[in-house]
Amino acid sequence: MQIDPDRFLSDLKHLRSIGACGTGVVRPAFSAEDIAAREWLAGRIEAARLSAHVDPAGNVFGLAKGRSLLIGSHADTQPEGGWLDGALGVIAGLEIARAAAETGGPPISMVSFQDEEGRFGALTGSDIWSGATTLEEADQFSATDGTQFGTARCGLSHLMQDHFVDPGRFTGFLEMHIEQGPVLDQAEEAIGVVTAIVGLRQIQVTVVGEQNHAGTTPMRARRDAFQGAARVAVLLAERMANVVVPESVWTIGHLQLSPNASSIVPGQAVFTIQWRDGEADRLDQMERVIEPVLAEVAGETGLEITADRLRHDLVPVPMDAGMQAALADAAEVVAPGRWRKMPSGALHDASNVSRLMPVGMLFVPSIGGISHNFDEDTRDEDLVTGLEVLAKAAAALG
Amino acid sequence: MQIDPDRFLSDLKHLRSIGACGTGVVRPAFSAEDIAAREWLAGRIEAARLSAHVDPAGNVFGLAKGRSLLIGSHADTQPEGGWLDGALGVIAGLEIARAAAETGGPPISMVSFQDEEGRFGALTGSDIWSGATTLEEADQFSATDGTQFGTARCGLSHLMQDHFVDPGRFTGFLEMHIEQGPVLDQAEEAIGVVTAIVGLRQIQVTVVGEQNHAGTTPMRARRDAFQGAARVAVLLAERMANVVVPESVWTIGHLQLSPNASSIVPGQAVFTIQWRDGEADRLDQMERVIEPVLAEVAGETGLEITADRLRHDLVPVPMDAGMQAALADAAEVVAPGRWRKMPSGALHDASNVSRLMPVGMLFVPSIGGISHNFDEDTRDEDLVTGLEVLAKAAAALG
Repeated sequence: MQIDPDRFLSDLKHLRSIGACGTGVVRPAFSAEDIAAREWLAGRIEAARLSAHVDPAGNVFGLAKGRSLLIGSHADTQPEGGWLDGALGVIAGLEIARAAAETGGPPISMVSFQDEEGRFGALTGSDIWSGATTLEEADQFSATDGTQFGTARCGLSHLMQDHFVDPGRFTGFLEMHIEQGPVLDQAEEAIGVVTAIVGLRQIQVTVVGEQNHAGTTPMRARRDAFQGAARVAVLLAERMANVVVPESVWTIGHLQLSPNASSIVPGQAVFTIQWRDGEADRLDQMERVIEPVLAEVAGETGLEITADRLRHDLVPVPMDAGMQAALADAAEVVAPGRWRKMPSGALHDASNVSRLMPVGMLFVPSIGGISHNFDEDTRDEDLVTGLEVLAKAAAALG
Repeated sequence: MQIDPDRFLSDLKHLRSIGACGTGVVRPAFSAEDIAAREWLAGRIEAARLSAHVDPAGNVFGLAKGRSLLIGSHADTQPEGGWLDGALGVIAGLEIARAAAETGGPPISMVSFQDEEGRFGALTGSDIWSGATTLEEADQFSATDGTQFGTARCGLSHLMQDHFVDPGRFTGFLEMHIEQGPVLDQAEEAIGVVTAIVGLRQIQVTVVGEQNHAGTTPMRARRDAFQGAARVAVLLAERMANVVVPESVWTIGHLQLSPNASSIVPGQAVFTIQWRDGEADRLDQMERVIEPVLAEVAGETGLEITADRLRHDLVPVPMDAGMQAALADAAEVVAPGRWRKMPSGALHDASNVSRLMPVGMLFVPSIGGISHNFDEDTRDEDLVTGLEVLAKAAAALG
């Protein structure tokens, strides 16, 4: 098959111009632009000799005949997000499926999943398709403006079919995505072959001390909750360094002092600790660092420190070994010495699809590591390199 | 002169029952209870053979004839404050002035200052009387509900005279107050002779890092503003220990992360550092500890750390040596071995009055160090001990 880089780049830029992504506007239900973008995509699918199928969740498939490899991502973005997060994988899937259908190649289908960024849920479209959520449950999901998913998807009813695509018709799923981090860009590499989508654990730590007057309470009589929180943060940085690999991350991103007034010794500090890694064993190891740090600071300071799980753990999702090999082989041909294996620190639709079939992912660089931001960008040559690697892997797998 | 502890305790408890303090209610303008409390106080002043003078700011004086020593404090409290913060010094002044007038003693006047706790300004009544603020400026001060001081004080106009009391008629000012800290209570001591009202300096520190995705940004690529703030807090605790005395305090009481989300590496942390001491030299020493800590953390982490003065410095206000000596002599007679010299970590009306005349202060214990809280309390025997020390010092000074 013969892919067409110009058509790929032109379609990718056109989708943005319609406003389906990168508009920077929080849209009421699905706006006219959102609907127009899906209508345009369905038209491009038909023009590519594929069969358009918009399912009841609003996932847009372009189906090849018979059993096929599926390639895609999502076309929605964050309110102030850029033009590539999601759309890149969708248009790459479209171009490769078109090239396969028009110029001779294995049967390849494409997909644009609904609401990956979580205006209503999070990964809503692939959640529903993979059975993690029912359509009835998802219909109750609300956007921050109160709009329910069930109401919003009615705006697409003229495009929808009444049934879901049978996952059994696909042999596997490939997703191309921007890295959304700085690793490839800083290393001046072109391709990341994803080994796993990392797991995530998160606790909320509550430090209870004693709220006191900041003028009349001697230092030795204080039980200052912020001093405890600060000590946890500094100790954690020291101790984590001993157990993690370069791909492991942990973050204290949210902290709230109480009463949070400059003349009052803080009586309480509540903060999150979140940690991510591609391997469940290492998530365990990191957890085994955190617990003694909390106990040690509590012991030294007389503060009461407790930890609660805030959300369900996300388990790491390893990518299929055969798909990793196909992507790695293709990368070595297209961009020799300019690719690496790496985990994905962010969640993707591929996590959900892995419940249904083997999945693989590849990354292209994000300039400056910037994403979820109008400034998100990738050089055209890197986008095309990604397309070529993806096409070569698809040809090998098909 | 012969003070009457029962009358003192009975008046002190009666004032609370009217609701002028300790009601725990944020009051619209001056409520009927507030006005009733001042009317009652004016009545008690006249009954004590003093001349009541409510000035245009709402300060309530009970004046002895001729030049006299002034004793007092304030009768307002915090929304959820207790019954002693302020009221104690007012009723003690009333009882000693009464005892002096009725049972033979030096001329003693008393005062209840307006709005010390800062519903409108802060120390509003003594600010105006001491010339730190004009009545016209104070009239523009607004409470959080929008009520202006100028409107609120009209509720007292039927009690007010059209002129201020001449400070020249007073030989000095004594204020008795609860400690609002744990020092006397923990040491099981009865009296604190105040050496100085501490000075206060405060800076706002801004740590600027780089806001990043908490999953896709490797640890080594992060510039995490909270990690910088935590390191400042821990280093400051180590370094301050080398320069301060037990009476020195410093506090990080307010901190705000941005964007403050558990999945985002904090791009900014803004926090206050406040420090207080009775000596200006030591305030300087403490400042000389802070600056290098900020520079050191900035150097180690690559974070940008800047500091701004948020408010005017408050300079330490030393108490008059003669008044300290009179209070110390009286304490040694009434409570031998059960008193100490100590600074006041909190601001008091005495700071303002020190612009006009020599001032002295004494503290009685706060049970558990608790203040600005319904649970604020002091044992009756400690209240009476304070009254006796104050009366003895007043007699010696008078």
